[in-house]
Amino acid sequence: MPDEKPARAANIFDVARLAGVSHQTVSRVLNGLPNVRPATRERVEHAIAQLRYSPSPAAQSLVSRRTRTLGLIAPAVSDYGPTRIGMHFSMAARAARYSVNTITTVDDDPGAVRAAIEGLLRQRVDGIVLIVMDIGVVEMVRELDLSIPVVAAASSSRRSPLLVQIDQYRGARAAVRHLAELGHTRIAHLAGPARGADAIERVRGWRDELAERGLPAVDLVYGDWSAEAGYRIGREMDLEPGMAVFTSNDLMALGLMSALRERALGVPDDVAVVGFDDIPEAAFLYPPLTTVRQNFAALGELMLQKVLVALEEGQDETVDTPLATHLVVRESTRALVVDGDEPVGGLELPAPVEGVPGR
Amino acid sequence: MPDEKPARAANIFDVARLAGVSHQTVSRVLNGLPNVRPATRERVEHAIAQLRYSPSPAAQSLVSRRTRTLGLIAPAVSDYGPTRIGMHFSMAARAARYSVNTITTVDDDPGAVRAAIEGLLRQRVDGIVLIVMDIGVVEMVRELDLSIPVVAAASSSRRSPLLVQIDQYRGARAAVRHLAELGHTRIAHLAGPARGADAIERVRGWRDELAERGLPAVDLVYGDWSAEAGYRIGREMDLEPGMAVFTSNDLMALGLMSALRERALGVPDDVAVVGFDDIPEAAFLYPPLTTVRQNFAALGELMLQKVLVALEEGQDETVDTPLATHLVVRESTRALVVDGDEPVGGLELPAPVEGVPGR
Repeated sequence: MPDEKPARAANIFDVARLAGVSHQTVSRVLNGLPNVRPATRERVEHAIAQLRYSPSPAAQSLVSRRTRTLGLIAPAVSDYGPTRIGMHFSMAARAARYSVNTITTVDDDPGAVRAAIEGLLRQRVDGIVLIVMDIGVVEMVRELDLSIPVVAAASSSRRSPLLVQIDQYRGARAAVRHLAELGHTRIAHLAGPARGADAIERVRGWRDELAERGLPAVDLVYGDWSAEAGYRIGREMDLEPGMAVFTSNDLMALGLMSALRERALGVPDDVAVVGFDDIPEAAFLYPPLTTVRQNFAALGELMLQKVLVALEEGQDETVDTPLATHLVVRESTRALVVDGDEPVGGLELPAPVEGVPGR
Repeated sequence: MPDEKPARAANIFDVARLAGVSHQTVSRVLNGLPNVRPATRERVEHAIAQLRYSPSPAAQSLVSRRTRTLGLIAPAVSDYGPTRIGMHFSMAARAARYSVNTITTVDDDPGAVRAAIEGLLRQRVDGIVLIVMDIGVVEMVRELDLSIPVVAAASSSRRSPLLVQIDQYRGARAAVRHLAELGHTRIAHLAGPARGADAIERVRGWRDELAERGLPAVDLVYGDWSAEAGYRIGREMDLEPGMAVFTSNDLMALGLMSALRERALGVPDDVAVVGFDDIPEAAFLYPPLTTVRQNFAALGELMLQKVLVALEEGQDETVDTPLATHLVVRESTRALVVDGDEPVGGLELPAPVEGVPGR
């Protein structure tokens, strides 16, 4: 028969009560300090055994310096990407028997993140991971030069040992390449925030892919990642039939397509749309959205792995290769038809860059 | 001029190094223990002042019994509702200067949640909040009879002091009432999981509202909250023109509408659809979705408030009134037209139950 588990774990005060001593005395026994009478020590050790007491991480930390707690700093958004990364990091940490102390930063600027880091240091975490959206944060963290391991999930063209990332730049190039190969020559970009680390990398990918093909990179407008922004911008954007819009995330693409319906512009016949993220909704939108899939689970798990290696072997100086993205082709894009003629880009859809089924 | 903040807070080892003593001696000084020579004590106190060292929560907890840390147990999902509740709880906790130790439970059954609670107790949190999806969890927590404050965000028809909740039952009744008032007599329900606490309350609301109106509550099918489930079920569901489907969340409604398009059933002309949640996407779907809005921010903040009151004044025995929902009427529902005649339910849309603009 299985043992009946106690409703709550015994704490140092339970041990003190049972042994008839102060909790300071229990603490002295636990820490192997002198000035405890042998009889008292025995009473305390007996109480510890009887209550199956195991010292709390707080008590242990005074001895071992380690708290087995990691700090997670995450932005105060419920967007799919940051949420999934944090969730998978937390699950992996728990599997490795680490606690996760989460700080949700309302503002995402370097100052707010720095205050969060200071808070976690006061709580004596063993390492810190950050899910970063603002481009200035990584530089700030690098300059702090912390004495504990730090890993940031953030996009940057400057590679650094403290970064883990998904290859936003190549993902964006794949999206633009797909549109160009369908015959589009005017490819706009509805970008994320101008200070958004991911957004900046996707703008760079859009610009470079167009440049390489001799196409103009002129239609660029910045949003704030929300469906609302996609809708608002989509109502006013300079659009003409035959155009394509590469949108920096799926939520803005969703809002954009809603605005296009109001303007009686069909997707993909009048305007082709590509998103980024592959949120679970993407396959069920009208029309189902062509987008760039990111592996958030792999990124969250990589964050933990990097922190643990740094804890065991000292700060890791390896610069990781960014994780690959996958273009998922659905119905919001197709080969462009000009004046009822044969499609410019060829009748057949090109195969997805890296083959992932759409549904 | 503002002070230059140190790159990281000083820790007990920095103090020990500067004072030229062991960290155990620093700890003895901090805890007011005897057997420290006056000259040594003075050196330690001087180092503490010089480094502006404040004892870590771990060190303080041995003295004060409080860790100023709250445990949050959340399911491993990135769904809008649980994510927003957790986020707003964490933000409110931080504003109140509490740390949040998050455990993400991969499985949502009572056993997994119990293991998470035991983990948090070992970490000596001051209180625990849970975001519960499975109906069995609340009963399990009640039976544990923990000695620290516990608050669960969970739906239940059995009111309890440890619960905070949004009124799923009345929200569901409002959704069904809306459809009935538009002239619908066959109102199906695409429910959440059979063990889902929210799902069960919404089924109950659907059933009771239909019963009160003498309408049959026969079309009931269970999904798993995902858009994919809505799509899969929607492809096979027994549907006829003039029907309505009350869907237990917006994601399944999105998948359902995608399946209806494939079956050439128009929304709302052939089949009316109502969702639940009001996710940010809802206003931009095709057609924009009529749904029931929940105030997740208020719920997250209420969780913190209840824990803090319990910490200060002992476990609160107040049973809170569930928070109200708001019906948001958009374009996936409208007065039913039979055989091209006047709409059965009257030409005008009824005013939303509680007036909230659709966009």
